Amino acid sequence: MTEPRFTGGLVPVVVVDSGTREVLMVAYADREALELTRKTGFAHYYSRSRRKIWKKGEESSHLQRVVRILVDCDEDTLLYEVEQEGVACHTGHRSCFYRTLEGEEIAPRILDPEKVYGKDKGSQRTDAEG
Amino acid sequence: MTEPRFTGGLVPVVVVDSGTREVLMVAYADREALELTRKTGFAHYYSRSRRKIWKKGEESSHLQRVVRILVDCDEDTLLYEVEQEGVACHTGHRSCFYRTLEGEEIAPRILDPEKVYGKDKGSQRTDAEG
Repeated sequence: MTEPRFTGGLVPVVVVDSGTREVLMVAYADREALELTRKTGFAHYYSRSRRKIWKKGEESSHLQRVVRILVDCDEDTLLYEVEQEGVACHTGHRSCFYRTLEGEEIAPRILDPEKVYGKDKGSQRTDAEG
Repeated sequence: MTEPRFTGGLVPVVVVDSGTREVLMVAYADREALELTRKTGFAHYYSRSRRKIWKKGEESSHLQRVVRILVDCDEDTLLYEVEQEGVACHTGHRSCFYRTLEGEEIAPRILDPEKVYGKDKGSQRTDAEG
């Protein structure tokens, strides 16, 4: 068991669809979030803006079942291979990486974001907070 | 053109093989590294340990030709889709994510790391510095 390096208490996590290999999002984990992920089999992260641990999908029901956790060569970045329920992005896109730096959308919106979190929360949430 | 958010001057970059979609590495870019990447078409990063901009492959010749740059929903993470020359990892593996958190190697070493950078540098370099 490799213990990753937590910089400032956090390690970045690249989240990939275990089937298609698509990069879904990038988030951060602290030691406790990683432990919860390993213990429960569902992705947990640490929200830097809300300053607390969150289970992905706890409100949206778009859970991520973690199939495998990889660590990079210098052990300061993790990669979760997940089975993504629904969509990863709070905008209703499957992946948070749905447009180019020039602003071209390369992937469709699959869900109405208001339906992801409910009308009051849809516009505020940054569930894929990086 | 979306201007990403640089946190502490840096934005994390997930680097993906444009053909296989494999996640090759994670590195960081400052504004200048991103500009150099866009201008030259080859991936540039900012090394936090060496505190300078580096062109991926400048010593190893394992260049990354950048096909497309994506930005995530909240604009604080980039994704480079690249054509990777040789290997991305200084260990000689194609990807820096070559083992599980439990320590199992899931991908073979393709190159002798001493051949990547030369005998004197092979063991020191963290070219895929995250």
